[in-house]
Amino acid sequence: MNNFPLLKDRILSEGKCLDGGILKVDGFINHQMDPDLMMAIGKEFAERFKDSDYNKIVTIEASGIAPAIAMGIATHRPVVFVKKKKPSTMQNMLSTVVHSFTKNIDVTICASKEFLQPDDHILVIDDFLARGNTAQGIIELANQAGCKIAGFGFVIEKTFQNGRKLLIDGGYRVESLAQITALEGNKISF
Amino acid sequence: MNNFPLLKDRILSEGKCLDGGILKVDGFINHQMDPDLMMAIGKEFAERFKDSDYNKIVTIEASGIAPAIAMGIATHRPVVFVKKKKPSTMQNMLSTVVHSFTKNIDVTICASKEFLQPDDHILVIDDFLARGNTAQGIIELANQAGCKIAGFGFVIEKTFQNGRKLLIDGGYRVESLAQITALEGNKISF
Repeated sequence: MNNFPLLKDRILSEGKCLDGGILKVDGFINHQMDPDLMMAIGKEFAERFKDSDYNKIVTIEASGIAPAIAMGIATHRPVVFVKKKKPSTMQNMLSTVVHSFTKNIDVTICASKEFLQPDDHILVIDDFLARGNTAQGIIELANQAGCKIAGFGFVIEKTFQNGRKLLIDGGYRVESLAQITALEGNKISF
Repeated sequence: MNNFPLLKDRILSEGKCLDGGILKVDGFINHQMDPDLMMAIGKEFAERFKDSDYNKIVTIEASGIAPAIAMGIATHRPVVFVKKKKPSTMQNMLSTVVHSFTKNIDVTICASKEFLQPDDHILVIDDFLARGNTAQGIIELANQAGCKIAGFGFVIEKTFQNGRKLLIDGGYRVESLAQITALEGNKISF
């Protein structure tokens, strides 16, 4: 457990635990965003992965974009965001299907081959790690592209779901800035 | 015409004009993003609106998030991103329907009342201004919330479409960092 104090404090003071074990952080992470906190998050990711070999940051729309671009600003590396719909102007696509448990639908995610190339070493950033199915979708896109994954950074991890195990078992490095161990009885536990 | 030189040069060197007058900037703006350029864009918006009275930046997912968060980092103001789907955890929603000409579909856009309040003065940031229909959707959300709009900032404007006229006629200030006057015969004109 290696929580980023600034983020942990903010989750404890402003996060809400809704019925059904839902963590609501939409006042500072995924609807309204605190740019100073995001920049601190970006710098913390940069620090944690400073010894990793990566040339590009990859995230997925929409909530992953802010922490990923903050890390990009901190490290001066390009950021690619994977899309949840095929844009009309995109050719030469990589794509796969990911199940969204929150919305209970299948989502096709895609990225252009132009920006995920065989010689890329990507670092994947997202807002949440829960079951790890989005992360698996990005691994599939990276496999299609033939590029390497240097690691995964998550703003918030729900350690009581099996996303981390899945990624660690796959041989990937995982860094989470806040590890939530339980969301029960409207209480957020670290 | 007051183009931001760094952006104009980048569009001229890396932008592509596709058939049908589509400007492709997905190598540095809306799929792969250059964080250093985004930060420069954020600072340029901050400078252009330095005399405006606003307490919050509002954008729309997904491509608006990077320039908006960069401006938020530059100005230390919170950033709200309007969503294109109703999240399961959102209550007390503001919502309206916007037509997407690119995809030829109607999209419901929404934001929580919690983050657009009557005493907010918002500055709206987005990647593109073309016909201005997304901007009109955000005006509608602001009207529902009862909050004021201090102005609109766009990374790229297509001056040959009528978005600017619509916003100016509505009494809004509009700043665009790159004004594209024509996209014809695979040529990008400023």
